[in-house]
Amino acid sequence: MDIDFDELTDYAKKFTGLTDEKEACLQEFSSEITPRLPEITDAFYQQLTKIPNTAVFLENRLELLKATHLKWLQSLFTGPYDKDFTALMYKVGDVHVKVNLPVEFMAGGMTLINNQLIANIVDICADDKEKCKKLLTAVSAVTGFSLLIMQQSYQASTLVEELEKFLKISGMSRTLFTNLAEAYE
Amino acid sequence: MDIDFDELTDYAKKFTGLTDEKEACLQEFSSEITPRLPEITDAFYQQLTKIPNTAVFLENRLELLKATHLKWLQSLFTGPYDKDFTALMYKVGDVHVKVNLPVEFMAGGMTLINNQLIANIVDICADDKEKCKKLLTAVSAVTGFSLLIMQQSYQASTLVEELEKFLKISGMSRTLFTNLAEAYE
Repeated sequence: MDIDFDELTDYAKKFTGLTDEKEACLQEFSSEITPRLPEITDAFYQQLTKIPNTAVFLENRLELLKATHLKWLQSLFTGPYDKDFTALMYKVGDVHVKVNLPVEFMAGGMTLINNQLIANIVDICADDKEKCKKLLTAVSAVTGFSLLIMQQSYQASTLVEELEKFLKISGMSRTLFTNLAEAYE
Repeated sequence: MDIDFDELTDYAKKFTGLTDEKEACLQEFSSEITPRLPEITDAFYQQLTKIPNTAVFLENRLELLKATHLKWLQSLFTGPYDKDFTALMYKVGDVHVKVNLPVEFMAGGMTLINNQLIANIVDICADDKEKCKKLLTAVSAVTGFSLLIMQQSYQASTLVEELEKFLKISGMSRTLFTNLAEAYE
């Protein structure tokens, strides 16, 4: 697939309200929130181990997953929020399909992470109402951005897998299928 | 499809942290936030009209969409958060597929709504740090819950549509396809 990641980045930013101002806000907050991120990652995986559907995917690789997760979490507060960031999130959605993670893991996981981030941000800066508001909406925007990109690629990869499955089951060649599909358009 | 909506409700609540305490918190806040919800709906659709990909879906039915949206937004603060609420969100995901809305509309839309809700909640209750924290995580949980359910049904409906498309293009009967698929399992 040939994705224009610059275009996708612009589109996803508009659709999640991730403005330049919000990006600057996240980066300014980096030093305050970063010391708390390992704890947020731990709490997140702790919650996942309590859900039977997710627990089975964690066996024997919890530490590896935590390390990758923490790195991503840190990147939310450092940026840059550019096409490389988008391409990475796009890759993550594809990997979710490849390792057979159900679709709801993305929205569920992001919600649990947001719950944690919100509680920590309010703790840190509730006395400064304007800062609190800016930061919370910036976090909402950047996690929403990540989720949107992941889900677009999850969907694209799922459709590719479905077609592969059909072709295998039917014994039909890709060329024949493509020609027939064109005749139906 | 035969969905156990009680089971799905429990699962989605665990995966988004929507606890009894958070539900009570949303309901207690209902009278304070409800007067602001029409403005939030207006701002949401205002943002969507500025994105070319979404604007085309709004033509000639903006008022109808706003009314439905506002009703849903109100329900987030009234409950009940039961299997009927889940069944309704499941229906919404299916409708998204039927009217050809791209997958990213769900995560994007929910992020823009969250941004608005967050700003309003901080405005209303920033002076009470604990209330603010509880409410913001409760809103994160209930919007995450709605998104998770919608996306599960969006995914299920997409797979059904893909199969229909494949059967139509290949000219294969459902029975033959099912029999061949079983042989591959």
